[in-house]
Amino acid sequence: MNSQEKRLFNFSAGPAVMPVPVLERIRDEILCLPGCGASVMEISHRSKQFIDIQHAARDRLIRLLKIPSTHEVLFLQGGARLQFSMIPMNLLRSRSEPAQYIVTGAWGKYALGEAKKEGPVELLYDGASHRYSQLPRWDELQVPDNASYLHYTSNETIQGIQFQADPVAKCPVVCDCSSDFLYRPLDVSKYGLIYACAQKNAGPAGVTVVIIRRDLLERSSDSLPGYLNYKHHADEDSMWNTPPTFAVYVLGLVMEWLETTVGGLEVMHRINQQKASIVYEAMDRHPQMYRGHARPIDRSLMNATFTLPNEKLESEFLAGAQRRSLDSLKGHRSVGGIRASIYNAMPIEGAAALAQWMDEFASTNPIA
Amino acid sequence: MNSQEKRLFNFSAGPAVMPVPVLERIRDEILCLPGCGASVMEISHRSKQFIDIQHAARDRLIRLLKIPSTHEVLFLQGGARLQFSMIPMNLLRSRSEPAQYIVTGAWGKYALGEAKKEGPVELLYDGASHRYSQLPRWDELQVPDNASYLHYTSNETIQGIQFQADPVAKCPVVCDCSSDFLYRPLDVSKYGLIYACAQKNAGPAGVTVVIIRRDLLERSSDSLPGYLNYKHHADEDSMWNTPPTFAVYVLGLVMEWLETTVGGLEVMHRINQQKASIVYEAMDRHPQMYRGHARPIDRSLMNATFTLPNEKLESEFLAGAQRRSLDSLKGHRSVGGIRASIYNAMPIEGAAALAQWMDEFASTNPIA
Repeated sequence: MNSQEKRLFNFSAGPAVMPVPVLERIRDEILCLPGCGASVMEISHRSKQFIDIQHAARDRLIRLLKIPSTHEVLFLQGGARLQFSMIPMNLLRSRSEPAQYIVTGAWGKYALGEAKKEGPVELLYDGASHRYSQLPRWDELQVPDNASYLHYTSNETIQGIQFQADPVAKCPVVCDCSSDFLYRPLDVSKYGLIYACAQKNAGPAGVTVVIIRRDLLERSSDSLPGYLNYKHHADEDSMWNTPPTFAVYVLGLVMEWLETTVGGLEVMHRINQQKASIVYEAMDRHPQMYRGHARPIDRSLMNATFTLPNEKLESEFLAGAQRRSLDSLKGHRSVGGIRASIYNAMPIEGAAALAQWMDEFASTNPIA
Repeated sequence: MNSQEKRLFNFSAGPAVMPVPVLERIRDEILCLPGCGASVMEISHRSKQFIDIQHAARDRLIRLLKIPSTHEVLFLQGGARLQFSMIPMNLLRSRSEPAQYIVTGAWGKYALGEAKKEGPVELLYDGASHRYSQLPRWDELQVPDNASYLHYTSNETIQGIQFQADPVAKCPVVCDCSSDFLYRPLDVSKYGLIYACAQKNAGPAGVTVVIIRRDLLERSSDSLPGYLNYKHHADEDSMWNTPPTFAVYVLGLVMEWLETTVGGLEVMHRINQQKASIVYEAMDRHPQMYRGHARPIDRSLMNATFTLPNEKLESEFLAGAQRRSLDSLKGHRSVGGIRASIYNAMPIEGAAALAQWMDEFASTNPIA
């Protein structure tokens, strides 16, 4: 590290912690990409060097998720927010086949709002009545077989709830995996479209991964605004326009870290389970101090959300955490309290240091 | 430089050469942004640190271009290509007020193609008949006063032609400045909307600057797809969704370099004139070897395009250039020949080394 400063344990919900070896590699290559005589930011996206980088990132992603050849991988811009519009613009069919939306938190609600502007959409499930603290079971939901698609959010970052089981539906399933992409293996064949902005588990803000079943590309109309047409990006190998080259390069380095340093998504999943257990067990040891937002069986392995009995205690908890190098733990303004995001790149030591501080804080602040 | 490799003179048309001090600063800060304990890629876009970075980038841009308070600066994603759609989607008015398009090269043509999908648009000028080798004069064009807007491309990267004078029109003028943004001072008050993807003069691919006159924001309809609505981005200070944080950070470093190291856009303009003269004078010294694509008065200060008498000579020229560390000089496939992109960050030494090779090649390969 050139800088002598100490890195903190970063619990930010996104943009979020990245693997240190990835940052070191960027540092070493930023002035001169090996064999290139220029920074990766300076070379043409049409150069052999960059095409190799983008293909390698894609191929590692295909190996990590065992993406079947029925599906296409796209690297896009505009974040999940642009996908909220692109999905209905590309995939909606006739009025008799409305898309079905499962809303289990803030992001699902935004997705629904954008979809409604584009065509026939129905709200199949809404968790508003219990403040998005729990999830439906797949067998409780009646998804019409002829729906244009079913949309859901696998992990709600703000509320901290996460589907553990794969979806069950006959229509194409569209999943916003932005905040739990690559946290475990996934059976991609069960999905019509998976999308994820990179800035939680996959890389820096500015690139969004879309994995789309190839037959769905036929739904994209030529009259769509060019950038918003999935078919353009698929036909041109994500080079329909200049891709966010640096972000794709970093995403590739994160994929390399997952594949070769971590050892794949099964190992990553076990580590994520372990980290989440460390934090949730600390929470459950002090039920009078820490009250979880999520129903226990729906707890997210990525974002642990909880409140303390009052705002004064929450402020003291956060201030003490900061003194222990535990950073960015403040909850989202809409839910309040504490949110500990423990994405792939958060080391176990970070989760352990947080749990230790939770224990210490609870014992030194007895609740009457 | 950590790497011992030699950096080349990089004439890539974009993504393109960046200032070395910017790359060195990234290298030094990538693991730990001063005062932050994390990489700039890892911190929340809602953190004070990042908001300060984005505001500083915006404020430097405002000072460099003397942007009046009538105009708003936005940092978006999706490149110029997404702007080709967003502009008509936001700015088109009634059928009796069609937007007017001036097409002077490949990019203007793409912009027109997307606009036609969105509403009433007219082709006011097309340079196809002379293969986009020359530009109209502003006083030759009859722009209807009530046009929704007039769209033109200040510099056509592929053809290498560039408007030197500011536009004259009563309707709002929309300018794609992607490939000559910040190459000289600009009277922003003459424009309704200026847009530029960053990857030529302003930063890495993945961020697009839009400078829009505030009254035009009133044209954006609430029914637009959320990400495509300029008003959303203006109302939320370019934080309607997660911005491409790293790209904005680098853009800010480039603005800092322009302001403090270069000394502003008037100095930058003189340097750019000097570099372009060096290359074009070498071209003109050997008219039998180098034939410029652009009419001389319309030559671009950013992209010098020329052909050699045959493909064999062009290949030899390129191979010899490569041996002299002059990289990425091959012309775009649609025009052929040679293209030397000499953006802001190309040092004078690069232009001089190219001119020297042009002289040497011409003298050692006499044309009968």
